[in-house]
Amino acid sequence: MRDEGRTGLGPGILRFPSTISIREVGPRDGLQNEDPLPIEDRVRLIDALSGTGLRRIEVGAFVHPDAIPAMSGSEEVLARIRRMPDVSYSALVPNVRGMERALVAEVDEVEVVVSASDTHNRKNVRRSTDESLSGIVEILELAGAAGIPVEGVVATAFGCPYEGDVDPSRVAHIASFLLAAGCSGVAFGDTTGMATPTRIQAVLDAFDVESPGELPRERVTMHLHNTRGTGLANLLWSVLQGVTRFDSSVGGLGGCPYAPGATGNIVTEDAVHMLQDMGIDCGVDLDRLLACARLAETLVGRTLPSQVLRAGPRLPPGQPPGWIQTSQR
Amino acid sequence: MRDEGRTGLGPGILRFPSTISIREVGPRDGLQNEDPLPIEDRVRLIDALSGTGLRRIEVGAFVHPDAIPAMSGSEEVLARIRRMPDVSYSALVPNVRGMERALVAEVDEVEVVVSASDTHNRKNVRRSTDESLSGIVEILELAGAAGIPVEGVVATAFGCPYEGDVDPSRVAHIASFLLAAGCSGVAFGDTTGMATPTRIQAVLDAFDVESPGELPRERVTMHLHNTRGTGLANLLWSVLQGVTRFDSSVGGLGGCPYAPGATGNIVTEDAVHMLQDMGIDCGVDLDRLLACARLAETLVGRTLPSQVLRAGPRLPPGQPPGWIQTSQR
Repeated sequence: MRDEGRTGLGPGILRFPSTISIREVGPRDGLQNEDPLPIEDRVRLIDALSGTGLRRIEVGAFVHPDAIPAMSGSEEVLARIRRMPDVSYSALVPNVRGMERALVAEVDEVEVVVSASDTHNRKNVRRSTDESLSGIVEILELAGAAGIPVEGVVATAFGCPYEGDVDPSRVAHIASFLLAAGCSGVAFGDTTGMATPTRIQAVLDAFDVESPGELPRERVTMHLHNTRGTGLANLLWSVLQGVTRFDSSVGGLGGCPYAPGATGNIVTEDAVHMLQDMGIDCGVDLDRLLACARLAETLVGRTLPSQVLRAGPRLPPGQPPGWIQTSQR
Repeated sequence: MRDEGRTGLGPGILRFPSTISIREVGPRDGLQNEDPLPIEDRVRLIDALSGTGLRRIEVGAFVHPDAIPAMSGSEEVLARIRRMPDVSYSALVPNVRGMERALVAEVDEVEVVVSASDTHNRKNVRRSTDESLSGIVEILELAGAAGIPVEGVVATAFGCPYEGDVDPSRVAHIASFLLAAGCSGVAFGDTTGMATPTRIQAVLDAFDVESPGELPRERVTMHLHNTRGTGLANLLWSVLQGVTRFDSSVGGLGGCPYAPGATGNIVTEDAVHMLQDMGIDCGVDLDRLLACARLAETLVGRTLPSQVLRAGPRLPPGQPPGWIQTSQR
């Protein structure tokens, strides 16, 4: 049925990678869209996640507490979690002040964000895209001196709720600038779920042009949302295009498909469940991950968009694929 | 950004098709999982759907009313709908008696179903897979004499809730038998949402082996469910594999992701929205389709799983792609 867990579009044409790296962003991108949780609940969720095999967790944001109340106290979160040596704990920083706080809190990595859409950037942080890029250069100086990797996230990379379509070459140009300025990698953010496979393709193709000769796709993370149902199709397409790094949110924290205009990251367990069945290793224990998703639902006190949490894995826990084959009965 | 609405995995390697044919199954596979609706509501939904550009609609099932109360009165539904000349109206038939009723009701096509999983088939219709196949041969004789095309649906093609994984070669063998027996086409049914892209691949590859030299994938319909979130990823993968015929349900009728063990077809408007943005023509007016999805919600009296209905299309109605590009501002 499979060629050692790998298959392709035909003999020798394309192969899936053997591994995919997932960054869990539920404690940040998820929870920042929920009612604020007590610090101990955020710590409990992060500690549960760090026991699943996930190697990268975005745990908070060093923003002003008035701007995003759900992220206030991120220092305390970082101080109280059980730091696992094989897990990288990152946080989002919006400016130099946030970077200083992140350094004090001893994060392993930081994320910086800029919107490719000028209008979205102004609505989000009251600055133009260019002004945000200048600010990121300052953050990079501080982080570089401290030896902390910085990932540059290009938001609204596949469309903007205010401007509509966003020019892929503009997205690629910003990403290329971020790498040249010192970012360790770039993420393309589908901030409001406007991506489709061809738009993924267009941004990656444009990025290849902007960043020739340095295997740029190895430095790309896809930050996908499932607002319009395209999340896992976009993930699949990105994988086919050589992208091996993805952001996702446990349980689908932060998203509620039944609220008008809802948004939300792709669901970690839904992504891992599909990829594992395709023979792609995410290094994650699905049962433990589902326990985290149940915990996330308990903490926020409502049903989350996770599909695998509702339906269960396609086979019972612990059963290897092919546990009973019809033809063998 | 696109090469005339088509793109691929690289120059000359793969291209998307220019068109995809969608069969709307909400009035049958959707509604049979809902509380029974009055005949006039079923008629109203079908008539609305036939004005969207959809060319194939599964409108009912000629099963015993005790077995599926929501499908009773399918004769009356067919008698009362406004039959559009360019729309094919089909129904599911379980046996010769159902086929006789379907002929009286003047359906354009029928679907017959058999589970690749023997256990599932027995639980479903109290017959073995082989016994069901014998029954289908009888149906095919009757339909053939009347000149009515019959599609053979192989259920549990990617996994069975009772048996687990299902051998792709068994699925392919049944499909090949159905074609040889006179079916006009075959559908692979992901009855409980257990498919992933590699399982789609395995079934199609096995089907190629069983049906060599006759472009078998042109006769394949994928009947996908989104129970575990993989629906549109499986659709994308199927499209890449040369499949151009899909079943889907308006609004996601029949599925509720927030009920335990929920199941449900992929959502018609979510599929059309993604495919259209990829430059693939489904012949469907998305705005009218969304109006049908709103009608479906009104008729069943609850929120349906549709994502595009909740979030809206990625661009406002009537706006062409690229209505404002950031780089042009």
